[in-house]
Amino acid sequence: MIATIQEKKSFLCVGLDTNILKIPSQFSNDAKGMLAFNKDIIDATKDHCVSYKINTAFYEALGSKGWEAMEETVAYIPDTHFKIADAKRADIGNTSSQYARAFFETLNFDAVTVAPYMGEDSIRPFLEYKNKWTIVLGLTSNSGAADFEMLPLTGATDMNDQYLYQKVISTVSKWGNENNLMFVVGATQAAQIKGIRNMVPDHFLLVPGVGFQGGNLQDICSNGLNNDCGLLVNVSRAILYADNHTQFAGEAARVAREYQYEMATFLK
Amino acid sequence: MIATIQEKKSFLCVGLDTNILKIPSQFSNDAKGMLAFNKDIIDATKDHCVSYKINTAFYEALGSKGWEAMEETVAYIPDTHFKIADAKRADIGNTSSQYARAFFETLNFDAVTVAPYMGEDSIRPFLEYKNKWTIVLGLTSNSGAADFEMLPLTGATDMNDQYLYQKVISTVSKWGNENNLMFVVGATQAAQIKGIRNMVPDHFLLVPGVGFQGGNLQDICSNGLNNDCGLLVNVSRAILYADNHTQFAGEAARVAREYQYEMATFLK
Repeated sequence: MIATIQEKKSFLCVGLDTNILKIPSQFSNDAKGMLAFNKDIIDATKDHCVSYKINTAFYEALGSKGWEAMEETVAYIPDTHFKIADAKRADIGNTSSQYARAFFETLNFDAVTVAPYMGEDSIRPFLEYKNKWTIVLGLTSNSGAADFEMLPLTGATDMNDQYLYQKVISTVSKWGNENNLMFVVGATQAAQIKGIRNMVPDHFLLVPGVGFQGGNLQDICSNGLNNDCGLLVNVSRAILYADNHTQFAGEAARVAREYQYEMATFLK
Repeated sequence: MIATIQEKKSFLCVGLDTNILKIPSQFSNDAKGMLAFNKDIIDATKDHCVSYKINTAFYEALGSKGWEAMEETVAYIPDTHFKIADAKRADIGNTSSQYARAFFETLNFDAVTVAPYMGEDSIRPFLEYKNKWTIVLGLTSNSGAADFEMLPLTGATDMNDQYLYQKVISTVSKWGNENNLMFVVGATQAAQIKGIRNMVPDHFLLVPGVGFQGGNLQDICSNGLNNDCGLLVNVSRAILYADNHTQFAGEAARVAREYQYEMATFLK
C-alpha cells in the first residue's frame, strides 16, 4: 500500500457508508440501488483514492439483501485498492475467530476494524491472519470519545499511559506489529494525533472524521504523517453525497480529486 | 419477561452460537444445515428457557447466506421468548442508528448487545427504541477482561467507580433505565457480581459463561438475583453440543431442563 500511496500521491480512503435514503432518486431505495450507486462511486473515485472502507451498519440495516450488496461491493473494488470492513467487531476469542473468518475469508477484506474493550483474546484471532490487517479503535472522532476513551488511569508510569486510549494503543501495539496492525484515530482529535504518532511511530493510522464531521486535513498531516506516510484518511459523506442528483458521480470524483491534490502537497 | 420467568421458573437463555463444523453429521455444513439444526434445538429447548441469544459472528462467517439463516432463525423463535442479538456493535451515532435499525427493525430482535468504548452517542440510538432493550458490555467472561475493563481509574469518589467496568456501568445506567437497559456480566466474574448488583439493583444482567467457560450457577445466583430475578443466564455450547450424534436434540433438552430445575431452586 505504501508504494500505491507514493505512486498516486494519495492516502485517501473513500468510505462507502451508503444510506439508501440519501442516494440520488434515480437509484431504487433498496439493496439493488445501493449496489448500483456504490459501483458508480467506485468508478468515479478509484483513480483518486487508495482504499475503500465499507461501513457494515448501512448494509446490515437491509438484512441479508444488504449483506449481498456488501459482498458484491467488495468484489467490485479493484484489487489495487485496500479494502477495509469498518465493522467494529470483537468478542471472546472463540467468537472473534468467526468474525475474522467472516471478513478475511468469506468476504476477502484486507482489513477489519476492531473494538478493544474485551482485551487480548478478542483481538488475537484477527491478528493471526497472514497478509491481513487489524485496525483497533484508539481515539475516535465522536463526542462520546470523552466518556471512556479519555478517562485518566492510575499508576501511569509515563505520559503515554495516562488515558485509556493511550493504554489501549500502547498495550495493543505489543500484540501485533506495523505490518498487521493499525489504529483508528479520529480526525477531530488533531491535538492528540501527535502524541499517538510518538507512541506508534511506524504504524498506519486510519483517520475518519474529515469532511462532514469537521476534521482538518492539514492538522492531521502536520501531526500524523511519518516517513511511509502512515495515514489513511477516510472521507465518506462529503464524497458520497457531494451532489444529490444526476451529477453525483462527477461531483464525487471532483471532491475526491480535491482531497488527493491537497494530500499530494503534504506528501512532498 | 419477568412474568414468564416466574411462570416457567427459568431464567435460562439458550445461545445459538451455531458452528457448522460442530453440528451433527446428519446436517449439511452450510447455512441450510445451520438453520435446520437451530430449529431442532429451539423445538427441544423452548419449554425450558425464556430467551434465545443469537451470536451474529457464527452467521456472518457464512456471509449473506448466514444472514439469511439468522433471519429465519429469529423468525422461528416463538414470540413468547426474548430474542437477543449478541452482536457487540456500536459506532458513531449516525452509524449506530443503522445498527439499531438492523437488529430492532429489519430483524425484529428484542435486544442487542452493545460495546461501550465509543461512549454516549454510540449507545443512545439503541436506547431510543420503545419496547427494545440495549445490553451493554460491563465485565465480560473472557481472560481479556483483565486488559482494559479492570483498569483502575484516577479520581474515584466511591468504591463503585474504581475500575473501568464500574465506571462504564455507573455512567451508562444514567442513559437508560431498568426497562430498556441491561448489562453483560460474565459468569466467570462471580466475585464482582455482588458489587455490580449493588450498583444497579434493578437492572437485568445478561450472564454468559456458564457451562463450557466454567461459570457456576450457584455463585451467580447468590450474588446476582434480585426481587424480579434480574438475571438471564446464557448457556450455549453445553446445550448445543450436548451430543454430537442422533441424540443431540434429546440431550440438549435434557441439559436445558437440568439448568431449569437448578434455576427453579434459586427462584424460591
